[in-house]
Amino acid sequence: MRPSGRDLDSLRNISIEPNVTKHAEGSCLITIGDTRVICTASLEDRTPPFLRNTGLGWVTAEYGMLPRSTNTRMRRESASGKQQGRTIEIQRLIGRSLRACVDRSALGERQITIDCDVIQADGGTRCAAITGGWVALRLAVNKLLKAGDIVSDPVTDYLAAVSCGIYAGQPVLDLDYAEDSSAGVDGNFILLGSGRLVEVQMSAEGATFSRTEMDKLMDLAEKGVSELVAAQKAAII
Amino acid sequence: MRPSGRDLDSLRNISIEPNVTKHAEGSCLITIGDTRVICTASLEDRTPPFLRNTGLGWVTAEYGMLPRSTNTRMRRESASGKQQGRTIEIQRLIGRSLRACVDRSALGERQITIDCDVIQADGGTRCAAITGGWVALRLAVNKLLKAGDIVSDPVTDYLAAVSCGIYAGQPVLDLDYAEDSSAGVDGNFILLGSGRLVEVQMSAEGATFSRTEMDKLMDLAEKGVSELVAAQKAAII
Amino acid sequence: MRPSGRDLDSLRNISIEPNVTKHAEGSCLITIGDTRVICTASLEDRTPPFLRNTGLGWVTAEYGMLPRSTNTRMRRESASGKQQGRTIEIQRLIGRSLRACVDRSALGERQITIDCDVIQADGGTRCAAITGGWVALRLAVNKLLKAGDIVSDPVTDYLAAVSCGIYAGQPVLDLDYAEDSSAGVDGNFILLGSGRLVEVQMSAEGATFSRTEMDKLMDLAEKGVSELVAAQKAAII
Amino acid sequence: MRPSGRDLDSLRNISIEPNVTKHAEGSCLITIGDTRVICTASLEDRTPPFLRNTGLGWVTAEYGMLPRSTNTRMRRESASGKQQGRTIEIQRLIGRSLRACVDRSALGERQITIDCDVIQADGGTRCAAITGGWVALRLAVNKLLKAGDIVSDPVTDYLAAVSCGIYAGQPVLDLDYAEDSSAGVDGNFILLGSGRLVEVQMSAEGATFSRTEMDKLMDLAEKGVSELVAAQKAAII
Amino acid sequence: MRPSGRDLDSLRNISIEPNVTKHAEGSCLITIGDTRVICTASLEDRTPPFLRNTGLGWVTAEYGMLPRSTNTRMRRESASGKQQGRTIEIQRLIGRSLRACVDRSALGERQITIDCDVIQADGGTRCAAITGGWVALRLAVNKLLKAGDIVSDPVTDYLAAVSCGIYAGQPVLDLDYAEDSSAGVDGNFILLGSGRLVEVQMSAEGATFSRTEMDKLMDLAEKGVSELVAAQKAAII
Amino acid sequence: MRPSGRDLDSLRNISIEPNVTKHAEGSCLITIGDTRVICTASLEDRTPPFLRNTGLGWVTAEYGMLPRSTNTRMRRESASGKQQGRTIEIQRLIGRSLRACVDRSALGERQITIDCDVIQADGGTRCAAITGGWVALRLAVNKLLKAGDIVSDPVTDYLAAVSCGIYAGQPVLDLDYAEDSSAGVDGNFILLGSGRLVEVQMSAEGATFSRTEMDKLMDLAEKGVSELVAAQKAAII
Repeated sequence: MRPSGRDLDSLRNISIEPNVTKHAEGSCLITIGDTRVICTASLEDRTPPFLRNTGLGWVTAEYGMLPRSTNTRMRRESASGKQQGRTIEIQRLIGRSLRACVDRSALGERQITIDCDVIQADGGTRCAAITGGWVALRLAVNKLLKAGDIVSDPVTDYLAAVSCGIYAGQPVLDLDYAEDSSAGVDGNFILLGSGRLVEVQMSAEGATFSRTEMDKLMDLAEKGVSELVAAQKAAII
Repeated sequence: MRPSGRDLDSLRNISIEPNVTKHAEGSCLITIGDTRVICTASLEDRTPPFLRNTGLGWVTAEYGMLPRSTNTRMRRESASGKQQGRTIEIQRLIGRSLRACVDRSALGERQITIDCDVIQADGGTRCAAITGGWVALRLAVNKLLKAGDIVSDPVTDYLAAVSCGIYAGQPVLDLDYAEDSSAGVDGNFILLGSGRLVEVQMSAEGATFSRTEMDKLMDLAEKGVSELVAAQKAAII
Repeated sequence: MRPSGRDLDSLRNISIEPNVTKHAEGSCLITIGDTRVICTASLEDRTPPFLRNTGLGWVTAEYGMLPRSTNTRMRRESASGKQQGRTIEIQRLIGRSLRACVDRSALGERQITIDCDVIQADGGTRCAAITGGWVALRLAVNKLLKAGDIVSDPVTDYLAAVSCGIYAGQPVLDLDYAEDSSAGVDGNFILLGSGRLVEVQMSAEGATFSRTEMDKLMDLAEKGVSELVAAQKAAII
Repeated sequence: MRPSGRDLDSLRNISIEPNVTKHAEGSCLITIGDTRVICTASLEDRTPPFLRNTGLGWVTAEYGMLPRSTNTRMRRESASGKQQGRTIEIQRLIGRSLRACVDRSALGERQITIDCDVIQADGGTRCAAITGGWVALRLAVNKLLKAGDIVSDPVTDYLAAVSCGIYAGQPVLDLDYAEDSSAGVDGNFILLGSGRLVEVQMSAEGATFSRTEMDKLMDLAEKGVSELVAAQKAAII
Repeated sequence: MRPSGRDLDSLRNISIEPNVTKHAEGSCLITIGDTRVICTASLEDRTPPFLRNTGLGWVTAEYGMLPRSTNTRMRRESASGKQQGRTIEIQRLIGRSLRACVDRSALGERQITIDCDVIQADGGTRCAAITGGWVALRLAVNKLLKAGDIVSDPVTDYLAAVSCGIYAGQPVLDLDYAEDSSAGVDGNFILLGSGRLVEVQMSAEGATFSRTEMDKLMDLAEKGVSELVAAQKAAII
Repeated sequence: MRPSGRDLDSLRNISIEPNVTKHAEGSCLITIGDTRVICTASLEDRTPPFLRNTGLGWVTAEYGMLPRSTNTRMRRESASGKQQGRTIEIQRLIGRSLRACVDRSALGERQITIDCDVIQADGGTRCAAITGGWVALRLAVNKLLKAGDIVSDPVTDYLAAVSCGIYAGQPVLDLDYAEDSSAGVDGNFILLGSGRLVEVQMSAEGATFSRTEMDKLMDLAEKGVSELVAAQKAAII
């Protein structure tokens, strides 16, 4: 029934290739089906002004898409002079989510910026960015631990994200672009490795939804995130 | 236990004053506790380019705060030359939500712009904007129906929004600013009059949450929205 | 002869409601006929860089219109990314005028920002903003005096503004929108309570004018401002 | 008493050199003391959208200062990405004033853009720009008349501008920078050749003023403008 | 003598991987040493306004760097709201160069946009972008030819670019970052497959240069471009 | 053969008028044929942040064109809110070139900003700006030397620029607008008084070029620059 032939509760193929750039403190290329995102973590020994002298660190994120990562070329945001609302919403979500698994006191007065740049888009780019962004963050923090710059690990758990939605009347896991563009309900679910919830966003796009449907989407999300966390574990060994 | 002394499942006082400006096709001043938002609906006989010749209408929203609607003066967004990420996120949410209760084919090739301007802020401004925005929309559409410009009512149901969160470890309804600024989990729930869900956003701010807690927040939201819908009904008579 | 039926030298109805917001140090809602403006005064314990260590304070103003304060919806300036020339001109005028009744040395190194936001426009918004802005300023300074933060009153006089113009060949006081949009000459007059002049701006819009006409407009302005000052006195008791 | 040794009612030396650029339809270099402004008139066979098919023409103006036209280098406005409030105010004033001596129906559906660029500033640049801008306009219209593109002269009168102010307690004509920067009251007066008033702007800068003083400034302005008009006449022969 | 141990006239390792994205009409990943650039060609059936109804097509280019493509994270240009001067200069160069090998009449009224996004930077990114951009262009045009949309091949020759400079007093080919950042003279050379010159830019950065040195750099450039063209030929088979 | 009747290797008439503004530390009006550029040098006792406490000075440049310096009025860059790519490219070139003849250590921690504003354009504005910019720089540095603020002359040589190109199949010196707009190859050559090369830019515009042609253009450039340097010497006596 799904355009890809997948089962209702199947993720697309996942690949997480760590350390793909020589400059960043942590990085990976995450591939979820045909969606590919380069995630890098950049470390700075300073924090935003509102955190000066608090002993707390900061994790923030930026998101972008190459102009031809999509089927039709998009206008380059640097050329148009501003980021679209969608871009701003996504990068705020990535940063907020990643901070939920970071002990900012253990990190100390440092900032880690996670850049997530979509090389090829086929649905689910924000979830791929969060899942891959966590890997880049993990690798950059590992470098700090190894160098002895910090002693206590500030990353408190795994964290991954998946989209679920109601496609052709059925709750399905991990929407690709073909599904996403015609889904009646679309949700993003961000969970810790422990299964606790970090962020839940469900949105009617044409059709509204019932609490029962919401519960089914949550079930799918829990299954999906546990598989993504397994892929993260495999990647950072 | 709550700073305001309210019960865990109590809304603040609600007032919806309709027709507060002489220019707009529909308008109201919505007051939820100390939060006050002017909502206006402006009707135009044209739609955005992507809808030309489709027979479909459009509903969109813009959100703003007066610089001193808040405790500390905020910079005026027109002076800084751009809208903040938070503003963009909120106005996209308002527009998307309102479209969920509109039959855009019955509306025809018209655009209704809902402007929500916060006069005084004390938490929950986006939810007040949606609840009041619906009233402005309803009144503007009534004018179209009365004038015979459209024959079938494009507004398919009531729609209201409420925030719930976990404050001091307890799920509570309708966070005011004192609660919002220290809540561990914060959610916005947008429902139709029928009880069906339009948008659910839950976000960890310091603490993560369990599915059981998520369910309790949903229960509170259903209670709150039903009371807000009653206030809408009273206001538009 | 006037669309409103007023005498040539009659102001519209005036109402000044003080203390309309709980956050601002001073505020009022000023209503002149159908023109309504919220004025707030925000106090900060710092001045612009060019005044550091001079012992002098600063008073500045910002002006905005809600998008649907006008008959046809205007584009939101924060969305278009810049303030229009008219906005900039008006807020510079408001700030410059208010500084004419302030002893900046008595104020000390503080800044007071007057925000004037037009809720509903029907002509004369800049004059209403100045007249109401003075009330907000007065109330904020009263708070400083009462708290003992300053000992000598920096507000040296009342200050109010009124428009006059030549409508249908006749000099008239306090133009409303119907008059303003077809007046041949339009002027704004800002005076102290003492009657001394702070700012005079007269502008031909289609017809030029003689010195005799200029004198008649000045006479009307003196009458109008004295009535506005009386309303200010009543409001701040 | 004046820093320059001039009489209270003396203008600085005036020079108006016409046709200074080979590209513009009309142009001049106006020199008032040490203030030098290049004024050009550019003719286009189209009007702004709001005038299409009305048979009316448009005259508009833009104003700029070379970064080092002033004593201390100013930031280039194209580099900072926006025009200052002062610039916007001045160019709106120039355009509005020039339109007061143009019969836009006789001009037909054409736009004339007056560019006023300050090469060297020593006070009174906006008045020099208006006085020189009129010359550029006159020359461009002469070209249209000569070519037979229009038959009736749309320029209905001479138009010139001068500043007056109260310096060291005395009303003086044509403030230079040394006077302007310490004047208590500053005004700009724009008059037709006939002596009728087009725009009057008087502004307290530190000191307020009486109606008697206002009258004296008006007297000076009438004298100054008549001399400037004589210089215009000499220049366009 | 060179930090990399290369001979004075040796290029770094070259790899050109064609067809790396599923959406673009043409694409490649070009790797020159540690410099990696994704180049895509996007085809549109419309041209810029200045070419409408001329029968001529257009080729243009945009250039960007991922924020952490460099050793130290750069600010994202979309976040800062404008492209840097360097970016603008580079993308104008890429577009201008590629147009030199295109018969725009044979292309017809189509636009091809070449996006060059630097994934990892180690010197020579603009040259890699041109060399890889040509491959993307070639592949997109091949698709047009194969589909029969055009009959005559608009790509008239191979085109590639290489940098040469004077490093430690010696003319060297293909500067990497270590060399580039301390070279006294730096040049970019863009040549056709035929050896004819398209663009030559030589720039003193600390040291000036003689005509003899200029000739030696040209010799190196000719050698380097011929090897790059061989790599292009191998890639597009 | 040339539209102006000049010989292939003839410059246009050159005039360099020094000290044309009273405010700038150094200035000139350079006229090359019908191209006229005002160049000013502004001195500041501070450098950009990246040079603080290095003991080194900085020379930078900005370039602008009056809107009607060209045949058709251009949009004012301050009004459009950004500088065009061409403007940015040119001002970077001017600054970079001038730094090639400055010993920044001898200059000390000072910044000199060269503003080049085109009053009338007829081809070759960037070369005129560099040649005139050097004169403004020289005069400003002379003032520093005379005042004893620096003891060793930081200007190490003369520096001038000229354009050459292939027009109607022939290499020609100093293209005017009529030639520039139809030249197949266009180059800018910046040389020291000693004849050493600072910057060479040759660009195909329609036709590519051979090494032999490149050599001929270089020969012409050497002749042209030597004549321009002679004019500089005459101007600064």
